[in-house]
Amino acid sequence: MRILLIILLFVGFASHAQSEDEIKIKAIYDAALTQGKAYDWLNHLSNQIGGRLSGSVQAQLAVEYTRDQLDSLGLDNVWLQPVMVPKWVRGTPEYAYLESKPGITNSVPICALGGSVATPLGGLKANVVEVKGAEELAALGRETIEGKIVFFNRPMDPTLINTFQSYSGCVDQRYSGAAEAAKFGAVGVIVRSMNLRLDDFPHTGSMSYGELPVAERIPAAAISTNGAELLSTTLKLNPGIKFYFKQNCQQLEDVQSFNVIGEIRGTTYPNEIMIVGGHLDSWDLGDGSHDDGAGCVQSMDVLRLLKVTGYKPKRTLRVVLFMNEENGLRGGNAYAEMARKKNENHVFALESDAGGFTPRGFSIDANAENFQLIKGWQALFEPYLVHMFIKGGSGADIGPLKNGEVVLAGLRPDSQRYFDHHHAENDTFEHVNKRELELGAAAMTSLIYLVDKYGVIPPKKIKG
Amino acid sequence: MRILLIILLFVGFASHAQSEDEIKIKAIYDAALTQGKAYDWLNHLSNQIGGRLSGSVQAQLAVEYTRDQLDSLGLDNVWLQPVMVPKWVRGTPEYAYLESKPGITNSVPICALGGSVATPLGGLKANVVEVKGAEELAALGRETIEGKIVFFNRPMDPTLINTFQSYSGCVDQRYSGAAEAAKFGAVGVIVRSMNLRLDDFPHTGSMSYGELPVAERIPAAAISTNGAELLSTTLKLNPGIKFYFKQNCQQLEDVQSFNVIGEIRGTTYPNEIMIVGGHLDSWDLGDGSHDDGAGCVQSMDVLRLLKVTGYKPKRTLRVVLFMNEENGLRGGNAYAEMARKKNENHVFALESDAGGFTPRGFSIDANAENFQLIKGWQALFEPYLVHMFIKGGSGADIGPLKNGEVVLAGLRPDSQRYFDHHHAENDTFEHVNKRELELGAAAMTSLIYLVDKYGVIPPKKIKG
Repeated sequence: MRILLIILLFVGFASHAQSEDEIKIKAIYDAALTQGKAYDWLNHLSNQIGGRLSGSVQAQLAVEYTRDQLDSLGLDNVWLQPVMVPKWVRGTPEYAYLESKPGITNSVPICALGGSVATPLGGLKANVVEVKGAEELAALGRETIEGKIVFFNRPMDPTLINTFQSYSGCVDQRYSGAAEAAKFGAVGVIVRSMNLRLDDFPHTGSMSYGELPVAERIPAAAISTNGAELLSTTLKLNPGIKFYFKQNCQQLEDVQSFNVIGEIRGTTYPNEIMIVGGHLDSWDLGDGSHDDGAGCVQSMDVLRLLKVTGYKPKRTLRVVLFMNEENGLRGGNAYAEMARKKNENHVFALESDAGGFTPRGFSIDANAENFQLIKGWQALFEPYLVHMFIKGGSGADIGPLKNGEVVLAGLRPDSQRYFDHHHAENDTFEHVNKRELELGAAAMTSLIYLVDKYGVIPPKKIKG
Repeated sequence: MRILLIILLFVGFASHAQSEDEIKIKAIYDAALTQGKAYDWLNHLSNQIGGRLSGSVQAQLAVEYTRDQLDSLGLDNVWLQPVMVPKWVRGTPEYAYLESKPGITNSVPICALGGSVATPLGGLKANVVEVKGAEELAALGRETIEGKIVFFNRPMDPTLINTFQSYSGCVDQRYSGAAEAAKFGAVGVIVRSMNLRLDDFPHTGSMSYGELPVAERIPAAAISTNGAELLSTTLKLNPGIKFYFKQNCQQLEDVQSFNVIGEIRGTTYPNEIMIVGGHLDSWDLGDGSHDDGAGCVQSMDVLRLLKVTGYKPKRTLRVVLFMNEENGLRGGNAYAEMARKKNENHVFALESDAGGFTPRGFSIDANAENFQLIKGWQALFEPYLVHMFIKGGSGADIGPLKNGEVVLAGLRPDSQRYFDHHHAENDTFEHVNKRELELGAAAMTSLIYLVDKYGVIPPKKIKG
């Protein structure tokens, strides 16, 4: 696009007297876009520390780094909440191939799913049965499945505009595919990566064996979408091919880790607590920039942006960087347990855990009154193109706080690119745009400001 | 983000009987996201052909390729409209450095601005005067400027949410900086790249010497934003430094080129013409994927998506791939002239020339009645998160059609990343996301469908 006519694009802006809220929110956005710290913090987390799997050295470095950074902000209180976390390790890089005939092989990119057991030391080779899901698996039954590798190959639905909805329609294959297949005597599981794109990155993620005894657990890995297409096509031509894979991941003893918490004490209602957060742990393949380095640094910047713009919250505001969202949710559970034990009154919790992309809105998990209250602020966000105020879930880490009183919310960024990177080697810093990240921090800060200023509506039983 | 709770995010979708328009638009989106051709076409334009500067071999290959692709769609008519275009060539790569003292140099990335003259054969070395714009230049006057290189260093404003607005507030430096500086005896011009990010890519773009006689024209180049920061800092420490640059670009004779046009004849009102388009030429540094390969392939797919979904337009629908938007607008002018000469009745024109990013809405250049008509369809786009229906400019190529009757519109994608890539070496295919591109094509197709179905409101003088 060239310059002629561009100037004409921006005529006719109506001007009107600005409200205090409009002025404040503009100041927050200006500060985020001209003196934001989120991007620098993310650069350090991603490029100096890297992937932060629970229990890893990197996760511990991230705890120390973010604690130190929060310390430097002059908050009223910064502390670590101890939490024991599972420690699963990937081991040496996984390896896999298709074998059309003995000696004729095609290697394909795979990665172990988080929580999976290893293959036997020399790897595992077997015939393959492709299924679209648990129902098809059950229909085929033990006679077809026994001794085979089950290949779950139901793709994400590309016609859903919200890609998280596509994800939620597929992720059962990854999460419980191995447990389901083991029941019918499968020896291993290969799952199509949760990715809308065709590419060569396998995407890891959590899985569970449910109640399956240790002896019956079978190894499970994700295959790249291109690999899945190749495997599926090859199977159609030659159902007799074998698949080989080798992985030596293992589950070790739980280790000590921490949630990182920083706090500004409320000036007027210090016992009413608002929290904003993301999760500090990530998977190990990339550097966890979008999932969820972005949410952590945005949350940290919320407190700093309020300070920079001279706003002192009436209510206590905490940033919580949760540990172990990816494979345990221990941090989220421990935080909620602590809150209950101390009888703390949490009134609002906001999580950013959907990537550092252009913010589109918020999903709000609250009663109708509070949903309407927040939706009523939508016009204040319109100049910033934040337009989605929808009822819905918030975030995994703040979920355990849910008690029918606290209002929960989640930042909803544009979701189109999220699953290109999710849990894969290419979830890296260069795929985060500085402005998009900062716009998210500004939207979050603005919402926290409004919640603090106007308060949420307490449940009737307390009020009346 | 993990899976627990994600399923909870998407509860409570209200269902209701769908209107014909809702069903049709859903079919268009489904087709775009499952059998879109835009991404494949763009892959060819970008990776097989590359940058398509007017008058280049690549521009000609792009004309032939898109004509052939349109031919394969079974349209009623596909043709080339001849148009003579300027041919400016960059020559060998530019070279520049800062010289603190004789022999102590720091090279910096620059590129000639489109339309600039060359430096002398051995390059040009002079002291530098940094200014923020034409006003400061005039205030300094000939005594300060004469014999110097003028360095225009006013950055894009990061606080504007619409980055095109930031661009329009800066681009005068690039477009007319050389003409202004020459009036005061400057020997060359260096312009900070139109880029919100700090990086090492110089961004080219069109410039004009206005009425300046040929003998008085001075060479002009863009410097990367990092280079501009370095130059500015160095000048503050040592105003006596010299800047050297060398470029051997030149303006050649005009050459023959073409607009590429494809048409579906209207079933009911064939004399009412709607057009959808982008521009086929690009700058030469990258492959022109966002600017404006994306708009071309989206426009081509509009006609194909209507066919795929079984919709026969009542009005005549043309796709127009304009030549020479970047440095001449000859294609846009030639098309409008042809339309006037043939007395064709254009009722609607839609351009996509703001990158292949997630579509956010449309800007509409029309009278109040037609603006309200189109804004009235906004609810139909809400499920697709297309929410901005604003009054404003449309696109450079369709601008010449403006006659007070035709309704003009422009696709408005998310603008945060556009100027990271605009006119630079990194405007390349891998920075276009397939789904984002397809969502744009679907939004455009849906708007064309609605305009065709309901018609625009003819001007009163004809009606009454």
